[in-house]
Parts: sequence; structure tokens; C-alpha cells
Amino acid sequence: MAPKALDYDSLNENVKKVQYAVRGELYLRASELQKEGKKIIFTNVGNPHALGQRPLTFPRQPVFNLGKVSFQVVALCQAPFLLDDPNVGLMFPADAIAKAKHYLSLTSGGLGAYSDSRGIPGVRKEVAEFIERRDGYPSDPELIFLTDGASKGVMQILNCVIRGEGDGVLVPVPQYPLYSATISLFGGSLVPYYLEETANWGLDIQDLRQSVVQARSRGITVRAMVIINPGNPTGQCLSEANIREILRFCYQENLVLLGDEVYQQNIYQDQRPFVSSKKVLMEMGLPFSKEVQLVSFHTVSKGYWGECGQRGGYFEMTNIPPKSVDEIYKIASVSLSPNVPAQIFMGLMVNPPKPGDISYEQFIRESKGIIESLRRRARLMTDGFNSCRNVVCNFTEGAMYSFPQIRLPPKAIEAAKKAGKVPDVFYCLRLLEATGISTVPGSGFGQKEGVFHLRTTILPTEEDMPGIMDSFKKFNDEFMEKYEDHRGYSRM
Amino acid sequence: MAPKALDYDSLNENVKKVQYAVRGELYLRASELQKEGKKIIFTNVGNPHALGQRPLTFPRQPVFNLGKVSFQVVALCQAPFLLDDPNVGLMFPADAIAKAKHYLSLTSGGLGAYSDSRGIPGVRKEVAEFIERRDGYPSDPELIFLTDGASKGVMQILNCVIRGEGDGVLVPVPQYPLYSATISLFGGSLVPYYLEETANWGLDIQDLRQSVVQARSRGITVRAMVIINPGNPTGQCLSEANIREILRFCYQENLVLLGDEVYQQNIYQDQRPFVSSKKVLMEMGLPFSKEVQLVSFHTVSKGYWGECGQRGGYFEMTNIPPKSVDEIYKIASVSLSPNVPAQIFMGLMVNPPKPGDISYEQFIRESKGIIESLRRRARLMTDGFNSCRNVVCNFTEGAMYSFPQIRLPPKAIEAAKKAGKVPDVFYCLRLLEATGISTVPGSGFGQKEGVFHLRTTILPTEEDMPGIMDSFKKFNDEFMEKYEDHRGYSRM
Ligand SMILES: Cc1ncc(COP(=O)(O)O)c(C=O)c1O
Ligand SMILES: Cc1ncc(COP(=O)(O)O)c(C=O)c1O
Repeated sequence: MAPKALDYDSLNENVKKVQYAVRGELYLRASELQKEGKKIIFTNVGNPHALGQRPLTFPRQPVFNLGKVSFQVVALCQAPFLLDDPNVGLMFPADAIAKAKHYLSLTSGGLGAYSDSRGIPGVRKEVAEFIERRDGYPSDPELIFLTDGASKGVMQILNCVIRGEGDGVLVPVPQYPLYSATISLFGGSLVPYYLEETANWGLDIQDLRQSVVQARSRGITVRAMVIINPGNPTGQCLSEANIREILRFCYQENLVLLGDEVYQQNIYQDQRPFVSSKKVLMEMGLPFSKEVQLVSFHTVSKGYWGECGQRGGYFEMTNIPPKSVDEIYKIASVSLSPNVPAQIFMGLMVNPPKPGDISYEQFIRESKGIIESLRRRARLMTDGFNSCRNVVCNFTEGAMYSFPQIRLPPKAIEAAKKAGKVPDVFYCLRLLEATGISTVPGSGFGQKEGVFHLRTTILPTEEDMPGIMDSFKKFNDEFMEKYEDHRGYSRM
Repeated sequence: MAPKALDYDSLNENVKKVQYAVRGELYLRASELQKEGKKIIFTNVGNPHALGQRPLTFPRQPVFNLGKVSFQVVALCQAPFLLDDPNVGLMFPADAIAKAKHYLSLTSGGLGAYSDSRGIPGVRKEVAEFIERRDGYPSDPELIFLTDGASKGVMQILNCVIRGEGDGVLVPVPQYPLYSATISLFGGSLVPYYLEETANWGLDIQDLRQSVVQARSRGITVRAMVIINPGNPTGQCLSEANIREILRFCYQENLVLLGDEVYQQNIYQDQRPFVSSKKVLMEMGLPFSKEVQLVSFHTVSKGYWGECGQRGGYFEMTNIPPKSVDEIYKIASVSLSPNVPAQIFMGLMVNPPKPGDISYEQFIRESKGIIESLRRRARLMTDGFNSCRNVVCNFTEGAMYSFPQIRLPPKAIEAAKKAGKVPDVFYCLRLLEATGISTVPGSGFGQKEGVFHLRTTILPTEEDMPGIMDSFKKFNDEFMEKYEDHRGYSRM
């Protein structure tokens, strides 16, 4: 009988081609083990609330006050009749009540009504003001679209860029698999450019040029370039000079730049503070500032917020012609509107307490506290990995991940082959079974041939971190002992 | 200079081909007029909260108690530390507190954590139990995926079905433009089947067969069929016998059936209560019940809920092989997870008070009250339209829309041409300017050549309805007077 439309053999080939490892074999095995009662340390996704969680009978306390006020605001917006309750003042502070009224006044019908497909105009205005304060350059709310998380925004833009197999998108390798997956799904071609591990995951413009030349020789028109700054999984921060080079390169090669800046609050060193691509572009002046097409992405899922489950994000478009903006609007309309509660979270995130506000001091103290703790955890983790046999690891300058290289001995690689596994998957599965630590094998992000990594988040608490690193070291060093023939490694 | 990737000329052609009228020219003009201070009655989208809204300083009261409890539950889930507040019992009833604890216990990390990409397992279980109660047949939570609204679910499934231009999807005409838009976006071919206005928007299997034959002669493989039951924009309810014929047809033609059942609670007559495609399929027995591939969609946006802004939905898969389910899971993973607050709304919707629960009586009374009011409004609107010159309208048996045919005189059609407008757009724009009533021209949904319609929702309040219909009649009858030459109409 003929295959049916949703039989595997007759599915859209682009769907089948998609690879998505972050929730792949390791994640599935970890879930199984958890079901069987094993304690699993999920360091595979940057999902802060799932990791910081207390036992379920003690629901999480917000980590700092701004968070608390924000949750109260969204709670009041969800159930606005609470505002009329005579007891509201007992449970909700005045500023939460005021903010809730503010956001309700921006919606048309509360959280239960579809918003404009680009998002609530008043929130988009708050985003534009945030960008202006951050960069010192004007931002137009009409060029800001709110989305159900940054992922959905990236997918919308790539859907517009990719016309077919002949269209290439430059993507850093290692990369966050959203990009490879989306490019497969829309039938385009991924054009990799390698980040240089020995140069602290830096990006070399010569290599970039080389990648474009090679793609062209395969008949591919490179149309877009992705940068992830700070990087996932690699954790590096781009310098202003580097971003300038990239933008100049995009100008020369006629590429639209997709700037994934979801980790802009997550910075753990002082040499390279976050600078947005938009700001660098504006500072470059003409012709660049009027010519280079740029789309920048942000989210409520990361930073001090970590509100992953809300699914809130935005993108800002620079130098995109109005007719194209209209097309992007039309495509957003097909699924009606992004979810409204997360739009309010976005408003709260981009418009936090200001100097002079009652909660400003506390907000600064607490948000600083979180970032400083993450900075200490980044250090603990990097040092922990570097103390392990056959493991080398760059410092996590930003984002939420550590991406150590695991130099697997040839015998381990053979053992993996025998087990029918990619070598890093083999290693990570062993790690999971032995310690409960759930990581993502480097092959899920792309890596140079014959080089192996794993990715963990730096999110376990400071108290848990030493125990986790000890248990990792114990596993790793035993693993290496077992497979090492004391002659050679997989090459660096 | 070469066009840049996001210049209009170089966008993905499939993006440009998408047509999406629900928020098209009429909507844009209505928004402009509103900005200029004109009072606009937005009957263009089924967005109940936006229409029932009170002035913003009096935030909406939930229409009934179940709603109130639900909003309280979601509010508590958003700010779970409220559960520890000694005053919580003053503002939140015991059942809301219990439900909030229940849903928090189902999440891993509260509303701020990504869930599994298919949605929270515990909520999917509640959905499966709902389907079992509704249909009397088993339902498997592993085959239920939660989504950010039904729209996103439909898009995911069509993305898997459509491999290219040669793949056709049978879509009713008139249709909800999500389908035409998504098929364009993914580069497939829409194969229309016409609903018969004179037969109360019924569906004729002979015509359906004809459509497939015609598509084949154009080299198209028809792979899927969409039914919308109850219908949007047409408002008809399918009989069980009709659904059985459709399923048999899908079996013969090897089509996957996409059953859009988002309006299953919105029924305004007793002859044809809602019956799900799943139930009919199960009742047909072998070979059908094991062979026909079916995906059914539901949402929190419609029914008594109307929680459009939350973006919550689900789909259930029947007879889809496990390997394909895995592929659909993988695609869902690319955007990490559906938003978590709306998953909780879905849980509350499918698991409302049961006989014996404290609030059961009130729930039944109030939800009935809403549907009865909508039924009266459907009647008022149909009768109102049928009392107008050159307007004929089928009764709204279900869903939220009225879809009157407007028989435009030849002179009106000429005037439209002169103005460079499609005739029904011309009529609807005039209506908007004259009365503030914002509708969607029938051409946005597809209609037979030379026949014109408009779509309104039946959502204006019962108090407002007579005024709206009077103002419509006044406009329409004057319009007809002006353009009629008392000799001929546009044909029925
Ligand atoms: C680099 C990067 N971009 C985008 C995202 C997507 O975030 P969201 O869709 O939750 O906004 C993530 C999430 O981990 C990420 O790491
Ligand atoms: C027939 C039909 N299907 C699907 C939808 C999408 O609903 P949502 O994405 O809000 O769940 C709608 C919305 O109006 C509709 O009318």
C-alpha cells in the first residue's frame, strides 16, 4: 500500500534532516534514568528555574526583589479583578499594583486577548527606550517585533531569508543548534565558520572569507551571517573591534547579520563588556550605518530573569526596508499574536527600577549579586575541568555554559565505535550513568573533525558545584585511566 | 548594487505569496481610524476579550466563576510565593490554592522553566482524560502535544506533510486563512473544495472527489485534507454522517485528516451537536479506525474561555507511526517548549469542576449562560442580515462568525474597480468609514467567482447588537440604493 502522508518515509525530507541534540539521546536517557529513580543533575539546557528549584512543596522564591515585584505584576494582570479586592494592599505592594495597571492599560482586553501580531505597541515602545538607553542611538518601536521567545524570532527571519538549497547562512561552529535545525527545516544550506578554540573561541575574518569562497564554489549564495554574542556553547564575548570587522565583512559580502544577543546580561569578565551589534554599526557611520541589514534578538529566558517557560522575546530590525518589514508582519500574523503574559515580562525586564525609584538600590544589589555568583561558578567550573586528566577548557566569559574539550584516547574511540556511538556521546552517556550529570555531547553543536567536547551549564548552585566537579573528576580520571594506553590522545 | 537578503525583491517567494486578510487592509484602516479617534467596533477577529472589554480603569471581571478560579490559579502559579503569604486565604479561595499547588507540582521549576517540548506530561494526561470522557475511547498522552495556540500546531503538522509544490492539501473554501497562508509559506499547493452556500455550507463528497481528480490532472499529489468543524467563517456544524463520509474518503484517497475542532464548545443548535472526528473514526471500526491518519486540534482561545492572548492549544495524533511522532517531537524541540502559563490554562479548561465539586453547579449554569447568550446573538445577527437589502445569510450553527452574502449591484462592482479595490473590500471599507464596524471581506477566505461576502463575529454584547445591526442596515440599504440600477445583481 502507498505510504500515508504522515508515515516516516513520506515526511518532508527537510523535517527529517533536522538535527537537534540538546534534547537528543542524552536527554532521553537522562529522563529514563530519572523515571527509574536516579538523581539527575540536568546541566544540559540553560533553564535556570529547573535547576535552582527547591522541592515542589516549597515553591521557588524569586531570587531577588525585582523578580518578586514582576511576578506580582503578572499575577495581577492575569487576574485583574484582584485589583478591586479590598485585601489587595495586604498581599501586593503599591509598585506592583501600579505596574499592573500600567500594563493592563497597554493591552486591549487584558492578557486574554490577542495582541497586535507584532506585540503590544506600548511594550514595544519600552523596548525601544531600553535599546536607546543601552546604545545611545535611536530605536524605532515600529521596527521591534515581540515574539514567543527568541527562537521563534530567529525562525521567522530565517524563513524570509532562505529561498532554497542555494541560499547559505554563515553559522559559527560550535553553534547553538537552533540555527542548524532551522536552516535544515527551511531547506537552506548551513555554511560553517569555525571558532578557534586555541584563541579563546575567537573568530578570524580570514577564515570567514574562506568559508564564503568555499560555499560559492559549491554554488551557494551566502545571504546571512549569524553571530552569538556572548557565545553558546562556547561562552566567549566578542570585542567591539571584532564586531566592527564582522559588520564590515557583512557590508562587503552583502550579508544580513543576525545578532543573537540573548546572553547580553550574562558577562563574567571586565575586559569585554557586552556591546550590541546595533551600537557598533551606528558608530561606524556611513555607509555602514545605513547599509548593513541587521536583526538583533533578545529574550526573557536568560540574564537575571531566566523566565524560560514564559516564552518572551523580541527582535529589532535595522536597515530593513519597509516593504520587507510588512512581509515579516504578515508572516507573524498567520499565528495571530505572541503570548501576552510574556510580553509583559519583556516590558518589566526592559523597564526595571530606575535611579530614584524605591526599589532601585535593592535591584542593583541583587542583580549584581546574581551575576557575581555566576561569575564565581564560571571560575569554579573552568578550574574544575582544567584539573581533570585530558580535559582543557576555556574560561566562560559570558552566557551560561562551559564547553571543555575532552581528549579521548584512541581506545575510548574504538570502544565507542564498537558500541555504535559517536565518541563524545559514548563519553557523555557513561558520565550520565556513573554520576547522574546530564550534559550535551559536543557533536550536537559541531566541532572540528576528531576533536571532542561536552557542554554543561554553569547553573548548578555554588553549594552544589564542588560536589558536581568532584564527581565529574572522579568519573573522568577513571575513564581516562581505563582507556589510555599512555601513548597518544585524540589530537587537539 | 545587488539586492540584500532582506530587500523585498530577494525575500523567500513563499513568504511573499502568503495572503492573510484577517489582519489585512481593513484591519489596518480600522486601526488608523481608531488612532484618529473614531469609535471602531472590531468584529473582524474572534477575540472575545477585546470586544467584551470594559473601560480599562475597570479591568474585566471574569464572565463566570470557573474563569475567576482559573485566573486565580494561574496568578498563584506565576507568583507561587503568594501561597506562603499569611493573607492568601483572604484573596484566594481554597480550590484555587489547591489547583495552583497541583499544577506547580506538575511543572519542573514553575512557570519560569522550559517544559518538555511536547508540554507538561501531567497536563497532557489531563487532556487525554478529557478526550476519553468526551469520546468514550482511549486517548494516549504520548500522542498529545501542547502548542502555543492551535495555529502553531497546524503549522507544525503541515510543515511535516508538505514536501513541495507537488503536494496538495484539500482545504474548504471559504476557509480560515491560517490554512492557505501556511500552505503558501511551506511551498505546497492548496486544493480547494467548495462548501455549498445554498446547502447551508454543506460539503458534498462528489465535489471533493472532483477536486482531487482535478488536482491530479495538474500533477498534484493530494496528501491531506482539512476540515473546520464547527466552521470558520461559515459557522456550519458537520453531521456525524458527513464526518463518516469524509473519513471513508480519506481512507480511499490515502489522506491524513486535519480536524480543526477549536470551536467544539461553540454550538448554537440542537440538531447537530459537536462530534469529534476521532470519535467517529473509532466508531467506524476496522479497517478505518486503525488506518486513517488523523490529527485533531483544540485551543484555549475559543469556547467559553476565549483566552486568545495566552496562546494555548493541543493536537492529538491518531494512527501516526511512532517514528513520525518522534520527528514531530524533534521539530517541536527546535523552539524549546510551548509557553507554560497557557499549558496550565489548558489543564484548567479540560479539567473543569466535576459533578460533586463545590463550584460544579455554578460552572454549568454560567457556561450554559454564555453559550445561550451567543446562541441568541447568532439569531439576532442572522435575522438582522437577512432583513437587509441584497443580503442573505445562513444561520450560525456554531463557531463565532456570521458570513452573509452581499449581492453587489454591477454599478457597485464598477465603482470598486475604478477605486482599484476588490468589490467586497470596497464595500467593507465603506462600511467601516460610515459606521466604524470592522469586518473582513469574504475574498480573504475564498468564495466562488463573482459572489461576495463579509465576515463578522457574533461577539458584540447582546445590548450592543441591535444598535450595530441597525447601523449596518442603514449603511447597507443606502449603499444598495445608491448603486442599484433596479435591473440586476451580482449572481447568487
Ligand atoms: C544562543 C541562544 N539563542 C536563542 C535561544 C532561545 O531562547 P528563547 O527561545 O527561550 O528566547 C537560546 C536558548 O538557550 C540560546 O542559547
Ligand atoms: C478555525 C480556526 N482554527 C484555528 C484558530 C487558531 O486559534 P489559536 O491559534 O488562537 O489557538 C482559529 C482562530 O481564530 C480559528 O478560527
